[in-house]
Amino acid sequence: MARTTIHVCVTCKLADDPLEEQHGRAGARLHRAVAELAAERQAPVDIVAVECLSVCKRPVTVGFAAAGKWTYVYGDFPAEVSAETIVNGALLYADAPDGLIPWRQRPDMLKKGVISRSPPLAAPAASPSPLPEAAE
Amino acid sequence: MARTTIHVCVTCKLADDPLEEQHGRAGARLHRAVAELAAERQAPVDIVAVECLSVCKRPVTVGFAAAGKWTYVYGDFPAEVSAETIVNGALLYADAPDGLIPWRQRPDMLKKGVISRSPPLAAPAASPSPLPEAAE
Repeated sequence: MARTTIHVCVTCKLADDPLEEQHGRAGARLHRAVAELAAERQAPVDIVAVECLSVCKRPVTVGFAAAGKWTYVYGDFPAEVSAETIVNGALLYADAPDGLIPWRQRPDMLKKGVISRSPPLAAPAASPSPLPEAAE
Repeated sequence: MARTTIHVCVTCKLADDPLEEQHGRAGARLHRAVAELAAERQAPVDIVAVECLSVCKRPVTVGFAAAGKWTYVYGDFPAEVSAETIVNGALLYADAPDGLIPWRQRPDMLKKGVISRSPPLAAPAASPSPLPEAAE
């Protein structure tokens, strides 16, 4: 199955984050935490730092993507306590052939934090994913 | 260059849209309008109806995607007056090698309506797209 990528927005910042020092921002801190945890666990995922996922109002924003699967964007992750939820969530995503994590398996932060999803390219028109996948 | 896909969320609904009759919802109406306009203009884009882009709070939601480009999700499109903006926007997206429409060329609805973007798979870490791409 296609390898899973975790996107972490490294430009996401909280109100009191340094504007000039990008490495001190919440997004950069979360990126480091996720990369360290994934490496420690030897999780089969790629961690990609992204300069802006265009969400901004719900920091920190992250995403899951893999070839042939739905792409997800999530927000509202506090930098210091979210790495485990994100890495675990990415492993659930990796296990889902279409990227749709069964609702009951989703941690609350992946339910409440969903910002958008996009179907894989060349998906059939009106894909049959059920309405309960809707945000919030 | 990779062919552009326009995603239109056909389950997006306004408060007074019919719940049971999906074809009467704002999303379905916008999907028909976009498909008709694109066909009329013979625009080189594929129109894909999607059952839920997981935004829900900002109907109607649409997206642009193409292999190797950033994927965008936009919201707040009134069904009856947005087809032209969306088809024109998709043609600008099609012209952009990376999917990043130059800021000055973007119609207001693509500036204010941006919900998220995701980089193409296998994008380099910390892609160099500039911060002014940020939402709103």
